[in-house]
Amino acid sequence: MALVIRVGPARQQWWLDHMQALLPEIECRPWDDPGDPNEIAYAIVWKPPPGGLKRFPNLKCIVSMGSGIDHVTNDPELPRHVPIIRTTAFDLTQRMREYVTLHVLRIHRRLPEIEAAQPFREWRQLINPPAYRRRVGIMGLGNLGADCARTLKAVGFDVAGWARRPKAIEGITCFAGDDQRRPFLERTEILVCLLPLTPETRGILNAELFRTLPEGASVINCARGGHLVDQDLLDALDRGHLAYATLDVFHQEPLPAEHPFWDHPKVLVTPHVASLIDPEAGGKAIADNLRRFIAGKPVPDLVDLEQGY
Amino acid sequence: MALVIRVGPARQQWWLDHMQALLPEIECRPWDDPGDPNEIAYAIVWKPPPGGLKRFPNLKCIVSMGSGIDHVTNDPELPRHVPIIRTTAFDLTQRMREYVTLHVLRIHRRLPEIEAAQPFREWRQLINPPAYRRRVGIMGLGNLGADCARTLKAVGFDVAGWARRPKAIEGITCFAGDDQRRPFLERTEILVCLLPLTPETRGILNAELFRTLPEGASVINCARGGHLVDQDLLDALDRGHLAYATLDVFHQEPLPAEHPFWDHPKVLVTPHVASLIDPEAGGKAIADNLRRFIAGKPVPDLVDLEQGY
Repeated sequence: MALVIRVGPARQQWWLDHMQALLPEIECRPWDDPGDPNEIAYAIVWKPPPGGLKRFPNLKCIVSMGSGIDHVTNDPELPRHVPIIRTTAFDLTQRMREYVTLHVLRIHRRLPEIEAAQPFREWRQLINPPAYRRRVGIMGLGNLGADCARTLKAVGFDVAGWARRPKAIEGITCFAGDDQRRPFLERTEILVCLLPLTPETRGILNAELFRTLPEGASVINCARGGHLVDQDLLDALDRGHLAYATLDVFHQEPLPAEHPFWDHPKVLVTPHVASLIDPEAGGKAIADNLRRFIAGKPVPDLVDLEQGY
Repeated sequence: MALVIRVGPARQQWWLDHMQALLPEIECRPWDDPGDPNEIAYAIVWKPPPGGLKRFPNLKCIVSMGSGIDHVTNDPELPRHVPIIRTTAFDLTQRMREYVTLHVLRIHRRLPEIEAAQPFREWRQLINPPAYRRRVGIMGLGNLGADCARTLKAVGFDVAGWARRPKAIEGITCFAGDDQRRPFLERTEILVCLLPLTPETRGILNAELFRTLPEGASVINCARGGHLVDQDLLDALDRGHLAYATLDVFHQEPLPAEHPFWDHPKVLVTPHVASLIDPEAGGKAIADNLRRFIAGKPVPDLVDLEQGY
C-alpha cells in the first residue's frame, strides 16, 4: 500500500519527506514516478492533470490540498467512485479570516485613497462611517464564510450572509436561496465571495449582480476565479458603479501579464495568498484525516459529492 | 451661564448648531466671540491656543474633544483647578479598533510587498506565519489599548500588552512598569503605541526601545507625535533593524511637506485619522458627559490630573 503526492515541482521533495515522517506506515511516492500503479491506495493532490488519477485502479481516497475540490473534480476522467477529503485545517480558516478582515477594513477605511495621497504629501483627512454603520455581505456560509462573518462582527461591522440553504449564525443576518439574493445584495456595501465553485455558482459575480449592489459598493473575491465574469467587473468599475475590487483568484493562475486587472487603478491583485496553506499545519491536518479514514472513523472533511463541495 | 466651543474654523458653525440642539438649556457661543467672559461656565475645545482658557474666570469644566488631553494641558497658563472631561465615546474606541486591526494585519500579511509587486505584474506568493504565531504588543492598556488587544486576540494574534501599572485582560499577557518593559519589547514583532502622552512617555519610542525590539519588527504609532523620536525611527528603518512604520500622529500636524516620513519607502503616513471623531456620535457623548457633570453625577471620563490622563 502506497501514497502518491502531486504538488508543484519546487515543493515536491519537501512534501514527500514531510508526509513520510508524519505517516511512516505508508510509503510516499512522487506523482511522476509512482512505481506500480496497482499499489497506490491514496493520492494527495493539488491541481492534478486530467486523466492522472485514473491511472491508479486501487485508489481508495483522494486528498485535496485545499478546502476547494474543483481543481480535482474538473478532471473529466476522474474516477467518480473514489471519496475525496478536503483540507480545512484550522490554519486555512485562520488565514482566510485574516485576509477577509484586512481587505474589508482596507476598503472601509479608505486606505487606497490615503496611500495614493502620500506621494503628493497631501494631508487629506477622509471621514468614513464607523464599522457598525458599514454593511458587509458574505456570500457562502460554509466553514470559511461563517468564521469570517463572526470575525467581522467582532470588529464591529454590520454583517449579513447569503447561502444556498438557510443558515443560522448568531449576530449575522442570514439570507438564503435565489429568492433572498436580491435583498441581500441591495444592502451590501462590501461584498465578499467565499462560495464553493459549482455549476450553479460559476459566473455568479456578473453584470446583473453588480447592478444589484448599491452604487459605490466594492467586491472582494477570495473563492475561485471561475465565480467572476472579468469583463463585467471591469465595466462596473469603469462606469463608477463599483468603487473597488480586491481579487485573490483568477481564471488562469498566475494571472497572465497582459490581463487588464494588473494595472487597473481600482483593482488590487493578490497572488492567491488569501489562505495559502502553511505546509507544517496543512501536512498535519492531512495526516490526521487520512488516519481517520483508514481507521474507518468519521472524517468531517469528507466531501459530499451530491452537493459538489 | 454659557458654553464656548473651539474647533477648526471650517467646522465651527456645524458644532455650534449641533451642540445648541443637544443642549438647549445652555447658550453655545463661538471661541472668538464669546460675549461676556464672566458668563462662560463650560468650554468644549480642540487644541485651544495658549492662554485662551484663562480668559474665563468662572469656568467650571473643560471638555476635550478627543480622548487625549495633552492638547489642553500643554497650555502653560491653563487654569489648573478646572476639571477636564475627555471624550471617549464608543465611536472613538470603535474607530481606533478598526485602525489598529487594519494596520497590524497589513504588516502581518505583507501587504506593502504585495502592493509593490502589482505594477510589475509580479505573481509573488509570499508566505507569512498564521496570526497565532505573530506576536503583537500594545503599549498602553487604557480603554483604547485594552479594546484593541481584545480585538486582535479575536482575530487570532498572540497579543501582549504593557502599561505603567499592572492590568489584567483575559487572553492577553500583561506586562507592567519599567522592570517588565524589556521582556515585553523583546517578544514584540508588531508594536502598537496607544499610550497617553505624559512627561514619562514623551519620546518613549526612541533608539533604545527600537534596539530592544527583535530584528524585523514594525511599529505603529496612533497615540501622539510626541511619543516618537523621528530621527531614531528613520535610523532604525534605514539600518534595516525595523521593517515598517505606520504613523498617524506627528510632532507638527499637518505633517510638513518637507518631512522625510512622506517619501520614506518603509513609512505609511495616515493623516491623524485613526480615531477621527464622528461629529454626530462625538457631540452626543459630550452632551451626555456635560449633563452628568452639571447634575453632580459621576462622570467616568473625568480626568485624574494626578495621573496626567
